[in-house]
Amino acid sequence: MISMNSLQHKFEAIRSNKTFELFVVGIIVFSAVMIGAKTYDVPPAVTRVVVWLDWFITLFFMIEITIRFLGEKRKRDFFKHAWNIFDTVIVTVSLIPIEDSELAIVGRLIRIFRVLRMVSIIPELRMLLNSLIKAMPRLGYVALLMFIIFYIYAAVGATFFKEINPVLWGDISISLLTLFRVMTFEDWTDVMYETMTVYGYSWIFYISFIFFTAFAFLNMIIGIVVNVLEEEQKEQSRLDGDITLEDVHKELMAVRALLEKSTRP
Amino acid sequence: MISMNSLQHKFEAIRSNKTFELFVVGIIVFSAVMIGAKTYDVPPAVTRVVVWLDWFITLFFMIEITIRFLGEKRKRDFFKHAWNIFDTVIVTVSLIPIEDSELAIVGRLIRIFRVLRMVSIIPELRMLLNSLIKAMPRLGYVALLMFIIFYIYAAVGATFFKEINPVLWGDISISLLTLFRVMTFEDWTDVMYETMTVYGYSWIFYISFIFFTAFAFLNMIIGIVVNVLEEEQKEQSRLDGDITLEDVHKELMAVRALLEKSTRP
Amino acid sequence: MISMNSLQHKFEAIRSNKTFELFVVGIIVFSAVMIGAKTYDVPPAVTRVVVWLDWFITLFFMIEITIRFLGEKRKRDFFKHAWNIFDTVIVTVSLIPIEDSELAIVGRLIRIFRVLRMVSIIPELRMLLNSLIKAMPRLGYVALLMFIIFYIYAAVGATFFKEINPVLWGDISISLLTLFRVMTFEDWTDVMYETMTVYGYSWIFYISFIFFTAFAFLNMIIGIVVNVLEEEQKEQSRLDGDITLEDVHKELMAVRALLEKSTRP
Amino acid sequence: MISMNSLQHKFEAIRSNKTFELFVVGIIVFSAVMIGAKTYDVPPAVTRVVVWLDWFITLFFMIEITIRFLGEKRKRDFFKHAWNIFDTVIVTVSLIPIEDSELAIVGRLIRIFRVLRMVSIIPELRMLLNSLIKAMPRLGYVALLMFIIFYIYAAVGATFFKEINPVLWGDISISLLTLFRVMTFEDWTDVMYETMTVYGYSWIFYISFIFFTAFAFLNMIIGIVVNVLEEEQKEQSRLDGDITLEDVHKELMAVRALLEKSTRP
Repeated sequence: MISMNSLQHKFEAIRSNKTFELFVVGIIVFSAVMIGAKTYDVPPAVTRVVVWLDWFITLFFMIEITIRFLGEKRKRDFFKHAWNIFDTVIVTVSLIPIEDSELAIVGRLIRIFRVLRMVSIIPELRMLLNSLIKAMPRLGYVALLMFIIFYIYAAVGATFFKEINPVLWGDISISLLTLFRVMTFEDWTDVMYETMTVYGYSWIFYISFIFFTAFAFLNMIIGIVVNVLEEEQKEQSRLDGDITLEDVHKELMAVRALLEKSTRP
Repeated sequence: MISMNSLQHKFEAIRSNKTFELFVVGIIVFSAVMIGAKTYDVPPAVTRVVVWLDWFITLFFMIEITIRFLGEKRKRDFFKHAWNIFDTVIVTVSLIPIEDSELAIVGRLIRIFRVLRMVSIIPELRMLLNSLIKAMPRLGYVALLMFIIFYIYAAVGATFFKEINPVLWGDISISLLTLFRVMTFEDWTDVMYETMTVYGYSWIFYISFIFFTAFAFLNMIIGIVVNVLEEEQKEQSRLDGDITLEDVHKELMAVRALLEKSTRP
Repeated sequence: MISMNSLQHKFEAIRSNKTFELFVVGIIVFSAVMIGAKTYDVPPAVTRVVVWLDWFITLFFMIEITIRFLGEKRKRDFFKHAWNIFDTVIVTVSLIPIEDSELAIVGRLIRIFRVLRMVSIIPELRMLLNSLIKAMPRLGYVALLMFIIFYIYAAVGATFFKEINPVLWGDISISLLTLFRVMTFEDWTDVMYETMTVYGYSWIFYISFIFFTAFAFLNMIIGIVVNVLEEEQKEQSRLDGDITLEDVHKELMAVRALLEKSTRP
Repeated sequence: MISMNSLQHKFEAIRSNKTFELFVVGIIVFSAVMIGAKTYDVPPAVTRVVVWLDWFITLFFMIEITIRFLGEKRKRDFFKHAWNIFDTVIVTVSLIPIEDSELAIVGRLIRIFRVLRMVSIIPELRMLLNSLIKAMPRLGYVALLMFIIFYIYAAVGATFFKEINPVLWGDISISLLTLFRVMTFEDWTDVMYETMTVYGYSWIFYISFIFFTAFAFLNMIIGIVVNVLEEEQKEQSRLDGDITLEDVHKELMAVRALLEKSTRP
């Protein structure tokens, strides 16, 4: 088990090496760009080398994960970490051989999938994704509020504007898409002017909708900023050695008590 | 009265139960989606169950509000809380039986209205709405500034561009709508190029308008962010036990006075 | 002179009265809306009353400014305050009688101008404008950076794309307008696709331009937010009684010195 | 060498003089605007004066840089500062005589280039650019995340939508451009409606893409804001004399120790 552990440390050392990281990222990006852009003339020798290096990276990841898996005392615990599962799936899929002749689309999608190996190699990307996932529940209630606003407007829109333009307001699901479009300001005046020919005051519908969603959206952004700033402050005060104003105050009270005791007699 | 109180507590306990909340939100959302999207084929058995559960929720809310109302010592005070009125209206409207044959539009609108029961069940949504309502007066003066900017530009636009395109600049109210469109950058260059054929320098009109509104808008957002951050800080300093630098300073002054008294003689 | 001063105080008291402020704002807004929207049918009696109230407000302002002017010891100092000049100009222009028959446009512009009396009556609007004006110099250097970015891209655009579309890239000033349009994302792809038919790589021109301006713009916003937050903090620490950590530290040093003196002998 | 040093100081004094700075900026901007806008009729006398002043500024910069270079003890160190290289290149290029007859485009580009002399004269612009360059690495990982999101969507888009519209989805590089366009909300619904005629659910593709990029973008902005605020705070606490809560605490501990020693016997 000791040799396994030392092997694992060696692989970890390679993985966290900045030069190796850059090399891997470079190969993955180059290999990704090569698939897409067949129009750029890359000499076949370079292509072959990159393909080989790409395979080498997948193999390196496979070996590394295997060692990490073998190093785990209880094999079950390995799959308790979401990132371990993620890595395993990515490597397994990357290992599937691609025969261009047969299932061209599946082959292409597997190749695209390989870009995700970058998330496996760069710890900062994982932290970024972790923080995004952590922010999700906070956004839950704002999302619910958004749903209520969108739903009410979509239902009202589908009820009144259906006859005017069934392509945009045919049923609630289409109306939701139309409202999302209005929220992104994409040709929203065309949508508005059309309904205004029948309902002259329908601009109230659009402008109030834009205000409500903008407001909810703003609230969401502010909420995230405030949360992030607070966490940063907590983190920093923890790093500062945990000395708060309260600590100073307590210490001062003790000094005063001592003084009063000494001056009383 | 005691039994009434305990009943109220029981209902409150059920209401604040997270699983019950999720169940209610699920039913409301499902029931809301079902109305809108008749295109998705939902088996009629499921539909019937959801309709029944939906009725059950409305009934639950009705009973809960009734108990809350009876539990109030002075019946008048019940309607002093805006949320109580909101809940009562929502439940009352939800109880109206919907006959599809007669007033189809009224029936639909009542159904849409039912989505708002979510605001009754989720305390976080109420807090969100409370904070939005609280932010309103702060925005009042920026809104007034915006009105002045919009009004002046709309009046100038209606005066000079009326003959060029009466659909966009016919009178001040239409000009306000056109300017709102320009603010959202929606095909604003089409509006501008049209007036530039007559008044070559009218681009100054549009660009200055965009700058002023962007500036006022930015000011508004910054104002809100700063306000929210300040309130958070106050909240936190209050939670920290109200110990400020001033307290520490006072304590220190007392210590010094004691010391000076003891060393003088 | 004493009676003048007391008169001035009386007028100030009226002006800062919230009910009076609301009344004045209401009349100004109503009167402003009335000019623009002749389509709304307002009974002529109401119109006449509003016109009279509007005149009354202008008169009130005139008397108030006159008293303020007479109350000033050195008449020169009165015009050293920018807001005094602003108020005087607004009131003077508002007093010009409007004969609809003669110069219709001048009459309309004067009426529009009257909306600015709101800035005279609402102190919060003045503070808002003051803060906007104060923020201006901070923005100066970012504006210069923006100018450099815009100028270089406009000059390059005018040089290479002139033949493709002289309406958009005819000379540098037109190119600047086109780039402003690209910055607002208004049909920017139409502009891009057109030049891409001749210069295949011109997308680099547009995307790099969008990145640079977005970056400079972001920098500007962050700069303002940070500045505002800092000023707020300074303001608050000043309100907190000017006690800083440094004060506490100094006090503590004094206590220590006292103690060391008392324990030495 | 002493005279060289004093000369250098003299030039530095001139350069940091605010009036001189304003004069130089004015000449550069005027000279830049003059090239572009030949449509504005500027009297030839003014043009000639401005051209001469422009040449004078370039000469001033050349002399100033030469003196700075001669003043450097080890000539190699001069080129270790990026801004020295920047200044030298700008001045050298500005010195190239422009013959309108021959290479019109090169001449124009050199003239445009001269606007960058502003960056040499205004220290605040350099600080701004420095801070932008410093922010770059922080953005690196978010840029990588953006690349992964863009790449996956572009590859999927190129695979499925190629037949629908090869102009927008022909290969991955074109798809990337189309997705950038979707991100800026520029006629994105036209792109979406086109693919929805074949793949009815392709709206999921667009809306999920908008959400992911908006989320990553938001994260980036928040990251920068938090970083800037932190640095500001550090800067300020450093300016405040480096007195932290920890210093106060330590001092207090010393006082307590003294007291305990004095009261024990």
